[in-house]
Amino acid sequence: MKIIIDAMGGDNAPDEIVKGAIEAAEAFNIEIILTGKGEEILRSVQKMGRTELPKGIEIAHADQVIAMDEDPVTAIREKKDSSMLVGLNMLRDGLGDAMVSAGSTGALLSGATLVVKRIRGIRRAAMAPVLPVGDKGIVLIDCGANAECTPEYLLQFAFMGSFYAEHVLKIKKPRVGLLNIGTESIKGTDLQIEAYRLLEEASKDGALNFVGNVESKGVMYGECDVLVADGYTGNILLKSIEGTASFLLREIKGVFMKNAVTKLAALLVKKHVRSLRERMDADKVGGTALLGISKPVIKAHGSSGAAALKNAVLQAMTTVDAHIAEEIQSNIERMKIEEKAEKN
Amino acid sequence: MKIIIDAMGGDNAPDEIVKGAIEAAEAFNIEIILTGKGEEILRSVQKMGRTELPKGIEIAHADQVIAMDEDPVTAIREKKDSSMLVGLNMLRDGLGDAMVSAGSTGALLSGATLVVKRIRGIRRAAMAPVLPVGDKGIVLIDCGANAECTPEYLLQFAFMGSFYAEHVLKIKKPRVGLLNIGTESIKGTDLQIEAYRLLEEASKDGALNFVGNVESKGVMYGECDVLVADGYTGNILLKSIEGTASFLLREIKGVFMKNAVTKLAALLVKKHVRSLRERMDADKVGGTALLGISKPVIKAHGSSGAAALKNAVLQAMTTVDAHIAEEIQSNIERMKIEEKAEKN
Repeated sequence: MKIIIDAMGGDNAPDEIVKGAIEAAEAFNIEIILTGKGEEILRSVQKMGRTELPKGIEIAHADQVIAMDEDPVTAIREKKDSSMLVGLNMLRDGLGDAMVSAGSTGALLSGATLVVKRIRGIRRAAMAPVLPVGDKGIVLIDCGANAECTPEYLLQFAFMGSFYAEHVLKIKKPRVGLLNIGTESIKGTDLQIEAYRLLEEASKDGALNFVGNVESKGVMYGECDVLVADGYTGNILLKSIEGTASFLLREIKGVFMKNAVTKLAALLVKKHVRSLRERMDADKVGGTALLGISKPVIKAHGSSGAAALKNAVLQAMTTVDAHIAEEIQSNIERMKIEEKAEKN
Repeated sequence: MKIIIDAMGGDNAPDEIVKGAIEAAEAFNIEIILTGKGEEILRSVQKMGRTELPKGIEIAHADQVIAMDEDPVTAIREKKDSSMLVGLNMLRDGLGDAMVSAGSTGALLSGATLVVKRIRGIRRAAMAPVLPVGDKGIVLIDCGANAECTPEYLLQFAFMGSFYAEHVLKIKKPRVGLLNIGTESIKGTDLQIEAYRLLEEASKDGALNFVGNVESKGVMYGECDVLVADGYTGNILLKSIEGTASFLLREIKGVFMKNAVTKLAALLVKKHVRSLRERMDADKVGGTALLGISKPVIKAHGSSGAAALKNAVLQAMTTVDAHIAEEIQSNIERMKIEEKAEKN
């Protein structure tokens, strides 16, 4: 297997990206293509104490870098020789099996859509991060790629998220929930009400395991395996979970730092609190899959260090093995509402 | 001052409601009208070890009770003699200064709108709970009354929330934020983009202190004092904060229960963890104000015990003193977008 990695993307590029890539290549016995400025990449390799590029790792030189704060569409249009676009072109041309980037989310999404293309019949690609819930996590789809959605988009997100949960997270018959403000089928806006109907219909066919509406307070308690949302709401949910968790963990830390007695208490539970902190840590869960694109593209966190990047590579490998795109393609007729309307 | 309390609303009615009401009357030196089944209310009084109704507290008998799971609109239409409607009618007729109910949210909202009426010019009443952030809290408006909103609703929510933060929470020049998925003015759906423009315009007039978009991860860190959202998203946010906090506090408890050593640690920090837990506890913050109604109506939590009910009464009293409805009424011209369009 060969994974293409954008060596220049993310806050810690290229050093940490290159380090994570080399570690991944050796740990997982795969080939890797690093896209970016050759000299800088080689310097990062040397910083690791190595004199040359390890076997199985090649560099695809790219002169430009897309910055995190650039307008995504303009960047993709104008920076043809950026590490991200060079990588996406190689992925399209079959020179690698999947692409991983810790660079600009918007640019990666635009670039993947323009260059690698969506699966035929899929209306919109969606971002599907895995929330740190339970043993295997919850796939949240979408979390920001599409602020405005139609019921059909949500139906497609449900299928894509379900395939991903089944084949990448290895959850049998994943329970698909619709993010909503109450459990009854008439809750929410017109979007959720109509999406509920479509999901229920798909569930009757046995094509999906739809478990109904899920309220945001039930998410952390694992009420579903796949959580379907429009990108606006999904983003609000994701960042509110992250923000609340980070706030509370900081407060807990504050409790332990109060005085000598609490500091002693901190020593006694240190190991367990660290393990809780790690469970809530996005980096451990890996990157965010861009679903609906014809080949696997994984967005690693912008703040990825070597360990997080390595996790994202593993996630890309699992996604390649899972043949998600093929699975989506072969079920595409079930995901079109025009087709469904004719059947009724 | 005289507060009307729905004695039959909520999971712990009437015992805890009656207890909280009596405690409030005595602590705050106010009059209270309890609406509901006279006999049951008297029995609750006796359970407190009292032989008769304390001075300053009267009962307005009502034969019916609206259950939490009834359809709100049907219940309000059909149960004319319910404790909730009897109370709302008394409020409308000036027999009390404010109303508190721990009963069905939907019914209270419908009933308040139908009976007490909205302030003239206000398009929709909104629910404005106070999030447990910082010393004074953050007013979230709306959190579920209106799943579908227009930009004008959001503008009105901003003004109403701002008056409430200023006069009830005593925050000077409250910072108004728009809940969104990024800080730039073009982020979000058409609703947020247009609301941003209206809020910015109102802010230029000095009528509001709009600080721009606020992402959900910044909410717990107090990036604003008033957070404006459509009811669907506001509800997702509120319940996701509640769910994540409850989940993490449970996990922390789990950490402390692991073994003899961690149990010792628990003893050492017990007081501080309890104080953190209490800060995150919705009951301490009080109830949710229904803003936009012509007289103060406070929705206490369904699970309210006596202490929470007492807090909700205090909140109702502060709201009466703050003359929020009058403040909204006298600023109503600034909250209409047709008027604004003519000015430009």
